[in-house]
Amino acid sequence: MNIERMKKDIRVLSGFTEPCEKGITRPSYTASYRRAIDYLKREMAQAGLQVHEDGIGNLYGKLPGQNSLAATIISGSHIDTVRCGGAYDGIAGVVCALEAARTLKGEGCSLEHPFEVMGIVEEEGTRFGHVMMGSQFVTGSYDASRLNQFFDADGISLESALKGYLGNVDLSDVCRKGENVSAYVELHIEQGPLLEESHTDIGIVENIVGISVLSVTIRGVAGHAGTLPMDLRRDAGLGAFRLILDGNNYVLQNYTGRATITVGHFHLEPDSANVVPGKCVFTVDIRSGDEKIIDNITRYFQKISRKLEKESGLGVEIETLTKKKPVALDHEYQDIIQESCKNLGYTCRKMDSGAGHDAMNFAGIWRSAMIFIPCRKGITHHPDEFVEDRWLENGAEVLFETIRQIDRIASQTC
Amino acid sequence: MNIERMKKDIRVLSGFTEPCEKGITRPSYTASYRRAIDYLKREMAQAGLQVHEDGIGNLYGKLPGQNSLAATIISGSHIDTVRCGGAYDGIAGVVCALEAARTLKGEGCSLEHPFEVMGIVEEEGTRFGHVMMGSQFVTGSYDASRLNQFFDADGISLESALKGYLGNVDLSDVCRKGENVSAYVELHIEQGPLLEESHTDIGIVENIVGISVLSVTIRGVAGHAGTLPMDLRRDAGLGAFRLILDGNNYVLQNYTGRATITVGHFHLEPDSANVVPGKCVFTVDIRSGDEKIIDNITRYFQKISRKLEKESGLGVEIETLTKKKPVALDHEYQDIIQESCKNLGYTCRKMDSGAGHDAMNFAGIWRSAMIFIPCRKGITHHPDEFVEDRWLENGAEVLFETIRQIDRIASQTC
Repeated sequence: MNIERMKKDIRVLSGFTEPCEKGITRPSYTASYRRAIDYLKREMAQAGLQVHEDGIGNLYGKLPGQNSLAATIISGSHIDTVRCGGAYDGIAGVVCALEAARTLKGEGCSLEHPFEVMGIVEEEGTRFGHVMMGSQFVTGSYDASRLNQFFDADGISLESALKGYLGNVDLSDVCRKGENVSAYVELHIEQGPLLEESHTDIGIVENIVGISVLSVTIRGVAGHAGTLPMDLRRDAGLGAFRLILDGNNYVLQNYTGRATITVGHFHLEPDSANVVPGKCVFTVDIRSGDEKIIDNITRYFQKISRKLEKESGLGVEIETLTKKKPVALDHEYQDIIQESCKNLGYTCRKMDSGAGHDAMNFAGIWRSAMIFIPCRKGITHHPDEFVEDRWLENGAEVLFETIRQIDRIASQTC
Repeated sequence: MNIERMKKDIRVLSGFTEPCEKGITRPSYTASYRRAIDYLKREMAQAGLQVHEDGIGNLYGKLPGQNSLAATIISGSHIDTVRCGGAYDGIAGVVCALEAARTLKGEGCSLEHPFEVMGIVEEEGTRFGHVMMGSQFVTGSYDASRLNQFFDADGISLESALKGYLGNVDLSDVCRKGENVSAYVELHIEQGPLLEESHTDIGIVENIVGISVLSVTIRGVAGHAGTLPMDLRRDAGLGAFRLILDGNNYVLQNYTGRATITVGHFHLEPDSANVVPGKCVFTVDIRSGDEKIIDNITRYFQKISRKLEKESGLGVEIETLTKKKPVALDHEYQDIIQESCKNLGYTCRKMDSGAGHDAMNFAGIWRSAMIFIPCRKGITHHPDEFVEDRWLENGAEVLFETIRQIDRIASQTC
């Protein structure tokens, strides 16, 4: 592995951004996105890979295997970023997979199985608001009917964006369900603090957590802050504060380390210093690797909402905005990653991924695995996102070793 | 008193509004404001009053007294409204004072003292963001230096607005500090539910409550909702929820009926469902007729903020946005209002005003009093604001009787 070559990739790619104050903003199908793709295409071609861009904008660089009939091994991650994001989220996995291919070529050896480096489009949902869109087209969850259903913030349809970006719209080469694929392996930054804090080199993902996002609306009665006595109020904000603290204590007491809840969005109406809030809307993001825990937490919120209604005269409605089940990744491949770490002398730990990743979708059609590398202080989706060179190099080596091990084992099973 | 004439005034004036979906939006110096002033000027002139519009936009209609050297009695309220407000807030007091003058003229009698009907500009602060601006120019708290310091949302200075509205800018007739004024009496809707709920006809204001508005900023560390374990978070939102509920319980336990606190504005950053809030800003509106109580509540928030900082690693800053002391209204005039209610057969109660009123400012230079009339369910600053005809009529009669009593008593003291 050539860490300098990888550092150059990261540096060059971080320059492909739409105008933004700090960090990187590279939404799908923009000019900066095109420049990133073109750079990667050149690098892939130079490494001798067969380059292909599919009809939804996913990029592939293929290294034929010694056995052309063997099931393909795919490795990669996403190329798009959030607004004002960092230089590693997504791209680290693309660059490490590319480096694995370059190293194979450089060593003059090839795998038994075809190997593909994959650069995935629209994982963050920054452009069209649908996270992991690119991979859902690949797995067949989304089809051409979405082209005129998805719109960006400027009202541009997915179809128009594709027409402008690729020149034509043809999804016939996008869906790969049913193809002979033996593995999808994605390297990604952890996006959390656990690896760095525990001085662990590598994270091996067991489950990608399930997510339920509840939208809770509390209806009270607005009133003048000075003239409505406190004991006569139906203050929607106070009701919300009570619910949230109660739910938070419940999760801390029962599920610390096994689930998270987050109230990240909170809005009062009319949101005026001198008006008692008549309405409050907030979200509860619930995540766990165990679906039962998510259901228990959801039920707890429903229970305390009924209680609040009775005690306070407020109205509480709970709507489920998102509900995704946890996804277990391939156990055998987890063991292969662990074995690879051991062979290379790296420390590792099994862990759940609290963030969603394309591997969630691919796990539905292919045996899938994920390798986490640390990122400083867990900072992500932020210009300060940072990965030390050695963390990137360690990850690339473990990814390379894992791919070779899978190649070996899959060959034996064929 | 002629209730039909007053109802017509209210109805006609409610038609003078800038475009808005529902209710009345009549900011100072707008075209709708001008139409309201012109209507009132015609009504005043028709009733034989000497009409005058001062250099800041306050309207006066003067009825000379039998004794031209006697101290003036002034009654009125404000003409501007909040956005999408109601038909009674402010205007009720102007119309009742006008009706008192019309009744005097109609009965062919005049007071010993000069009597002025006053329509006050920019009380709500809707246009320039400074509440009770008009009355502060009258009392001398504001002077010409403000003309180029106050700007509306479109960046128009107070000076430019005045030039456009009045044709020229000349504040020489605005400040009335030092003039011989014996009383300012303001009738206003209660803007709270107490009179209606207790089936009381008239409220007699003892104090206009003091107001402190705190802006509390909590700084934590933003993070990914899925990847940052709950026990490692410094969640600014959770810190805020705890502070607010603690402060709220403190006030309910110690000062129910004697103070209010309200958290009406609340903002998380980045306010995204899947991000642990790194920052939170909220306001605490604290009101009481007793300044010591306001100070105690403020100190309590400071104390629990220090506690939260120690326990949670969050940073808490408290800034005082507004600090106004409670204002006691004239005791003798309170008794005169009570006596007037008794003479007319109306029920009344003494109470504090939880809302600010121009009388707060006038009380600094003139002996001032306020008469409250009920408004349905305490709804105000809202298109549904409503006052029953008999409430308006009762109020007008009590105001008229009060003015005559003050005229009589003030004459004796002269």
